[in-house]
Amino acid sequence: MNEKILTAAGPEAGQPTSPLVRKLSVELPPPSLDDHRGQRERLVEALDRSGEPAAVLSPSALKSLLGAAGWVTVLQDTTGRVLGVEPGASDAPAYGLAIDLGSTTAVVELCKLSGEVVGRAAGPNRQAQRGEDLLTRIQVAELEGTEGLRALALESLNPLIRGLAAEAGIAPTEIVAAAVAGNPTMIHLLLGLDPTPLSREPYAPMADAPDPWPAGVLGLELHPEAPVYFLPGIGAFVGGDVLGGLLASGLHRRAGVGVLVDVGTNGEIILGNRDWLVAGAGAAGPAFEGGAVKAGMRAEAGAIEALRINPITQAVNYRTIGGGVPRGICGSGLIDAVAELFLAGLVDRAGHFREGDSFQVVGPAEAAGGRAIVLDQEDLLTFIRTKAGMMAALDLVLGRVGLTASDIEVFYLAGAIANYLDLEQAIAIGLLPDLPRERFVNLGNGSLWGARLALLHQEARAELVELRTRIHYLELNVEGEFMNLFTPALFLPHTDLDRFPTIRDRLEGQGP
Amino acid sequence: MNEKILTAAGPEAGQPTSPLVRKLSVELPPPSLDDHRGQRERLVEALDRSGEPAAVLSPSALKSLLGAAGWVTVLQDTTGRVLGVEPGASDAPAYGLAIDLGSTTAVVELCKLSGEVVGRAAGPNRQAQRGEDLLTRIQVAELEGTEGLRALALESLNPLIRGLAAEAGIAPTEIVAAAVAGNPTMIHLLLGLDPTPLSREPYAPMADAPDPWPAGVLGLELHPEAPVYFLPGIGAFVGGDVLGGLLASGLHRRAGVGVLVDVGTNGEIILGNRDWLVAGAGAAGPAFEGGAVKAGMRAEAGAIEALRINPITQAVNYRTIGGGVPRGICGSGLIDAVAELFLAGLVDRAGHFREGDSFQVVGPAEAAGGRAIVLDQEDLLTFIRTKAGMMAALDLVLGRVGLTASDIEVFYLAGAIANYLDLEQAIAIGLLPDLPRERFVNLGNGSLWGARLALLHQEARAELVELRTRIHYLELNVEGEFMNLFTPALFLPHTDLDRFPTIRDRLEGQGP
Repeated sequence: MNEKILTAAGPEAGQPTSPLVRKLSVELPPPSLDDHRGQRERLVEALDRSGEPAAVLSPSALKSLLGAAGWVTVLQDTTGRVLGVEPGASDAPAYGLAIDLGSTTAVVELCKLSGEVVGRAAGPNRQAQRGEDLLTRIQVAELEGTEGLRALALESLNPLIRGLAAEAGIAPTEIVAAAVAGNPTMIHLLLGLDPTPLSREPYAPMADAPDPWPAGVLGLELHPEAPVYFLPGIGAFVGGDVLGGLLASGLHRRAGVGVLVDVGTNGEIILGNRDWLVAGAGAAGPAFEGGAVKAGMRAEAGAIEALRINPITQAVNYRTIGGGVPRGICGSGLIDAVAELFLAGLVDRAGHFREGDSFQVVGPAEAAGGRAIVLDQEDLLTFIRTKAGMMAALDLVLGRVGLTASDIEVFYLAGAIANYLDLEQAIAIGLLPDLPRERFVNLGNGSLWGARLALLHQEARAELVELRTRIHYLELNVEGEFMNLFTPALFLPHTDLDRFPTIRDRLEGQGP
Repeated sequence: MNEKILTAAGPEAGQPTSPLVRKLSVELPPPSLDDHRGQRERLVEALDRSGEPAAVLSPSALKSLLGAAGWVTVLQDTTGRVLGVEPGASDAPAYGLAIDLGSTTAVVELCKLSGEVVGRAAGPNRQAQRGEDLLTRIQVAELEGTEGLRALALESLNPLIRGLAAEAGIAPTEIVAAAVAGNPTMIHLLLGLDPTPLSREPYAPMADAPDPWPAGVLGLELHPEAPVYFLPGIGAFVGGDVLGGLLASGLHRRAGVGVLVDVGTNGEIILGNRDWLVAGAGAAGPAFEGGAVKAGMRAEAGAIEALRINPITQAVNYRTIGGGVPRGICGSGLIDAVAELFLAGLVDRAGHFREGDSFQVVGPAEAAGGRAIVLDQEDLLTFIRTKAGMMAALDLVLGRVGLTASDIEVFYLAGAIANYLDLEQAIAIGLLPDLPRERFVNLGNGSLWGARLALLHQEARAELVELRTRIHYLELNVEGEFMNLFTPALFLPHTDLDRFPTIRDRLEGQGP
C-alpha cells in the first residue's frame, strides 16, 4: 500500500491555513473625554478597518474587553463572533481540535491553528457500555432519552482533551475551535438530538449539517465560546466521518474511478470520481473494531494485531500492540487469524473448522490473566458475515453504476483498522477485492484527517458543502438484491474464485 | 400638555410591524426514501425559498424539528437564528416584551408582535436595596462583583414577566423577543458587565450597543432562545432609555428646535432637530422618583401625587395614587408641595421656611401607620438642589449651542414623573422653563415606548443606529461652567425672575 502519495496530494501540503477561528491583532484607540465610545464599538470598528466580518460579541466576550486599549489580540470565528480579547499583540499560537467520534473509539488531535499537529489521543467511546452497535444505542435513546448517551460521549472526549492539553502544557480553554467528524448517530447523540429517525424508514436525520455551536453549550471542555463545527453527512448512514475521509482522499477530484471504504462498524462506501459520486453503507457490525467476537478487543495495548499460523505445526506467531502480554485480538488480527486458518487448511471455504470446533490462538500460560485466547465456530461465522456484508455492499454499489471491482483504479481504505490491516490477508478472506496491490491506499484515520482539514481550511469546509450536493446516496438496507450478493460472499474468499485469481493461485500452491 | 399629537405622529400609527422575531408558516416536504435530507436541511431550504435570511439553528431549535412535516410554524429572528418550530400553520399571535429597566422602577409591557399592547406591569428595581443612585451601585459592583446586582435586576423583572404572562393566559416561553431600554449602568449590570468604567474618566462604557443575546443565557424568563435586544446608548450617561424616548418623540425628525428631558434620577437631556442633536445628563439624583427625601416614595398606591395648600388656612388637599391612605409623597407630589409652600409664602425664594423648620403635609391620624408625613428644611433643600441641577444642565446644553430656553419650540417630558407632573407647579419652582404651555408634550414613559418601537419595527432599530452617530454628547460633569448655572437655579424659581415672567406675574398677584 502506498500511504505517501496521499500525504503529498492532500490539500494540506504547505498551505497557509484559514481556520474556524483566527487570532488577530488590532489596535484599539484608548477612550478619552473626546472619544467615549464603548469598548465594544472600538473593537468592532478596529475589526471592520481590518476587513474582518462584522463582529458579534457575547456577554462573556464583552467582559474580556475590560480595560483593553492599544494593541490587543482578538479571537474571531468565521461568522464574525468574537470569542474574547487579550491584552497585547500576542504571537502565541492558537489551538484547535480535530475530533473523530467513532461508535467504538474516540480520537482527538490537538493542532496549532497554523497547521502543526501537536498531539493525538484515543480512547473508547463510553457509549459502548450501553450497546456496541448503533441500533442498540438508538433504542437506548428512545427508551431513556438522549441525555445519558450524550453525557457518555462527553465523558469519552473530555478526559482525552484534558490529557492532550496537559501534555502540550496549555489550558483546555486555550483550545479555541473544534471540528467533529462522526457518523450521524454519534453526532445526533453529541447534540442531544433524538436519533430515532435514523433507524426508521425513510431514515432522514434531524440534521445533515448542524450549525456550529459554542463548546460551552455543548459541554466540551474547550474555550466555552469555541465554535464546534460538525462535518456534514448525507442521510442516516453516511456521516461526516465518511465525507471527511473522502475530503482527505481527494477521490472526488480524480479523473479515474476510485472507491473509499471505511472498514469499521458501519462499512461506508463512496464510489466515483470528479464527475460523479455515489455512497452507500453496509452496516457491517462491530467485528472489525474488536466487537462481536468473544476474544475481540479494540486496537489498543495488548491486542494481537497480526498473527501467522504455521500450516505444518499449527504454531502461532503473533505481535501485540505495545509488545506486551496478549489480552485479545483486534480487527486486523482477526483478519489474519481467519485468513491463516483458511490458508493453512484448518477451516474450509464455508468457514467451518475441518476438525474440532475451536482454535486456541494463545494458551492460558502466555495470555493475560491466564485466560486462553480462543476463536470458536460462532466467532468465525460472525466475522465472515461481517466481511461478507462489506463485500456485498461494495458489489451492490458497483453494480448500481454498472461497474465491477476491476474497474476500481484506486481503493482508499479508511477506519482504525486500515493502519494495521494486512492487505494480502484481507484479500485472501474476500474482505477486499483481488486488485493489483498498488491500487490500495491506506488513508489511516480519514475521518480525523478530514476533521483537521475542516478545522484548518476554508476551502475544505466549502468542499464539504459542495460534496453533500454532489453525492448520490444509495439506500442499501432496503435493496432486495443485497441478499443475492451477500450469500456467495459468505464463502472464503467468495463462491466465485474467478474474482480472486491471486488467491486461487495461492490455494493451488502458486501464490506468494 | 398635549399627549394626543404624539400618539398620532409617532412611527407606530397603523404600520405593519417588522419585529425582532417573526412567525412564519412554511411547508416542509416529508422525508421519503428518495429524499432523506435532514430535517434541518428541509427547513433551511423552505425558509430560503420564502426569501428569509439564512437560517441558523441551535441544538434546542433542532430538537423542535422532530417529526415536523407539512406546514409548520417557524420563529426566526432578524439575524436568521431559528428559535424553534411548531407543527401546523399557526395563526396564534406571537408575543414580545418591551422592558424599561430604570434605576428605581422596572416596567415591562407585553405586546403581540403584530403591534397590539396586551398588558403592562411595573415594580421596584430591587437593586435599589443596594444603593439608590447609580454611583453607589457601581461601587457595590466594584467591591462585590456584578453577580449580586445582576440577580437583583432579574428578580425585579422576572416576577413582572410571569405576572403579565399569567394575566394574558400564556406561558412566559410564548414570549419570543424582548427589547430593553435602560441607562448604561442598568444595561451593564443586566449583562454582568463591570460598570466601573462608567464612573471614571473618560466615562467610556464597555458597550454602547451590546449585541442581542438569547434570554436563556441572560436569565430572563422568556422563550430561552428569545433574542433580547438592547437599545443603544451614547457614552456613560445617555443610555438606550433616552434614545428610546427620542425615537418615540420624533424630535429628531422635526424642523424646529426641540428638547427631550427625562425627569428622572439621571436627568438626561437631548436638544436639537432634524439637522443636529446634542445630549447631556444632569445626574439629578433620585428625588424626582421619591428617593433622597425622607417622606418620598415611588409613584405607587398610597403615594401623594398631587396636593394644594390653602394660603390662608394652610390646610392641605391631596390626592393619592389609588385613592387610599397616604403613605408618602412621590415626585409629582413633591413638586406640588414645594411649589405650594413657595406660592403660599411659607417658604422664601431661597427655599427656607419663613417660620419653623418643617411642614406637616398629613397628620398622624390620617396617614398610614399613624406616622405623620412631614417635609423638613433638609428635604426642601435636597429637592431644590435636584431641580436646580436639572435646570442648570438644560441651561448648559442650550448655552453650548448658543440658544436660550425661549428658542425651544417643543419640550418633551419623559420619565415616570411626566405622567403626573403639574406643569404650572413645575414651572413655578423653576424645574421647567417658563414657556408657552402648549409647547410641552408629555411623552409618558418614552423609554418604554422606544423599547416597544425597537421590538416591533426594523425602521426604529435602524433609526437608533443612525441616531447614535448623529448625536453629539456633551460631558456636563466636567464642565466648570455648570456651577455658574447651578447656583442661581437654587432659588425659586431662579435668581433671574425675568426668565419666569408668568411666575413673576403670579407672585405679584396677577397670575392664574
